[in-house]
Amino acid sequence: MRATLMHKAHDVRIENVPDAAIKQPTDALIRVTRACICGSDLWPYNDQPETPGGRPMGHEAIGIVEEVGGDVQRIKRGQVVIMPFAYSDGSCMFCEEGLQTACVHGGFFGSPDVGGAQAEALRIPQADGTLYPIEADAEDALMPSLLTLSDVMGTGHHAAVTARVRPGGTVAVVGDGAVGICGVIAARRLGAEQIIIMGRHPDRIALAKEFGATDVVSERGEEAIARVRELTGGFGVQSVLECVGSAEAMETSLGIVRPGGAIGRVGLPHYAAIPGAEQTFFGNIIIAGGPAPARAYIPELLADVMEGRLDPGRVFDRTVDLDGVPDGYRAMNDREALKVLIRP
Amino acid sequence: MRATLMHKAHDVRIENVPDAAIKQPTDALIRVTRACICGSDLWPYNDQPETPGGRPMGHEAIGIVEEVGGDVQRIKRGQVVIMPFAYSDGSCMFCEEGLQTACVHGGFFGSPDVGGAQAEALRIPQADGTLYPIEADAEDALMPSLLTLSDVMGTGHHAAVTARVRPGGTVAVVGDGAVGICGVIAARRLGAEQIIIMGRHPDRIALAKEFGATDVVSERGEEAIARVRELTGGFGVQSVLECVGSAEAMETSLGIVRPGGAIGRVGLPHYAAIPGAEQTFFGNIIIAGGPAPARAYIPELLADVMEGRLDPGRVFDRTVDLDGVPDGYRAMNDREALKVLIRP
Repeated sequence: MRATLMHKAHDVRIENVPDAAIKQPTDALIRVTRACICGSDLWPYNDQPETPGGRPMGHEAIGIVEEVGGDVQRIKRGQVVIMPFAYSDGSCMFCEEGLQTACVHGGFFGSPDVGGAQAEALRIPQADGTLYPIEADAEDALMPSLLTLSDVMGTGHHAAVTARVRPGGTVAVVGDGAVGICGVIAARRLGAEQIIIMGRHPDRIALAKEFGATDVVSERGEEAIARVRELTGGFGVQSVLECVGSAEAMETSLGIVRPGGAIGRVGLPHYAAIPGAEQTFFGNIIIAGGPAPARAYIPELLADVMEGRLDPGRVFDRTVDLDGVPDGYRAMNDREALKVLIRP
Repeated sequence: MRATLMHKAHDVRIENVPDAAIKQPTDALIRVTRACICGSDLWPYNDQPETPGGRPMGHEAIGIVEEVGGDVQRIKRGQVVIMPFAYSDGSCMFCEEGLQTACVHGGFFGSPDVGGAQAEALRIPQADGTLYPIEADAEDALMPSLLTLSDVMGTGHHAAVTARVRPGGTVAVVGDGAVGICGVIAARRLGAEQIIIMGRHPDRIALAKEFGATDVVSERGEEAIARVRELTGGFGVQSVLECVGSAEAMETSLGIVRPGGAIGRVGLPHYAAIPGAEQTFFGNIIIAGGPAPARAYIPELLADVMEGRLDPGRVFDRTVDLDGVPDGYRAMNDREALKVLIRP
């Protein structure tokens, strides 16, 4: 079958690899009908060292179940399923608490062992706990929005939840990538009154405004902090959705959060320590977030997508087949595309 | 009047100073009937540089209102009042949210401007918002427990609340000082099932056990982390009450918190950054806490004290008059006393 492998930074190839196959009786095999490129895929796209054999890429997918292992009970052949970016057994104490990304038998897609979703097919460990069957045809017009429940919309929602967005609250979203845009959608959905999008790409800002952003801050660093304070009576916001992961984004987040406020981190941190230990202490700032338990959020978000109240699929502004994936990486990295959808 | 001044590390003196007096129409003047020495007073006791004129000490008190300014409405002469360690106007948006330590007109006692509570009398800014009148005689036997609502019990409670202690939950309390002991009381009160006290002073451990600690870890560093993991099925605890403030205590806290867990920091941080930015991210760890809004917690804790369900006053194991204060500092610093009560 054909799959996406990253050999080193800026070297993404579509190659023939051994067919994905069931290895464990708890596995399922899916044919990937939709996948996409994640903002987090751009980190290795820019810094991955030479990797012998290449690293399988992709961790977001919708697919059709082609085969299930002998111990799989709930998932059936032929179902259309959402695949969250982490696999999980669905039964350990962390899964029961809704923190599937900490599952004791869990892990993440896009690794040499499990394979990546930017491919024709994929082995799904812990299929019963991982996959979420949906009542939709594989070619349903809602597919782009449904695909976002695999990661990006769940991640934006997690940023909003961990940043404790509340009805009537004030929110800043750091980063205008697809996760940031989904953060705006989530903040609006949770009832925030003021939603400040921090970014500088006109088309993304325009989309964020359509989704409910009330203010735009395009400055950076200290100037950005000053602008957010101006917009919030000098105090800063109650909720910061940190959707980037850089040291600068974290510093900005700390600068714009008001006392008693919370920072929901969903950008993969590229900094070793969280600065401002005293400042966050005296402000009673809450620092939270991490990999989103996308699986836990599917039920509530799915209802809104199916009933037309939420259309996060609009973050996709380009569609490619597998051959178009390498250029899709380039386009996202050049900020030419916001998020690239893949039809393998 | 007589008051406590810290001139430099290890140099605490009782001196005659100008009488405390009303300065603003929103002030009240209290005669201090009970005060105490705080674990946080030991930081300057060990590291304060030479300070011309000395620094007024003390931020915990119960007193009798002797005089009120022209704008004070709610507080009356003759009332017995609890004085939380921060003053606050009671009406700004932070006070309304119950975060009085971030009050826009607030501040902390024990400063040159406001004076300290280890004294015969004290000026109380924002008296209406700050003071909490109680129905008790100034010599009531409950006075030690009532005094803890000024800071130490409210702080232990804040650690537990911000660490999200829940019924049936697992908790570790880092530090066996008076705040840590109050953290045990608070964790028990909030329904925790397993409460691990981390400390090494036999008398304090014994008291913690009486208050509900179920396990004791007296190791330090990596060994302490390993012990807590052993006691929690390898996962760590859901809630860590960080009641010290040292870099080592924070590192221990990060080592023993389980995925999805929370660290409630109430020890004044003596570290610049919070390490483990990636580890806390992947674990979806919540880092919270700060100066406790003791004022907000008084109503609920007071009921438990008045009705005999809570006796945090047992953290006081020594009582002194003002002349005994310097030796009280020494005794607490030498870990000879857990917490020293002052009857000025």
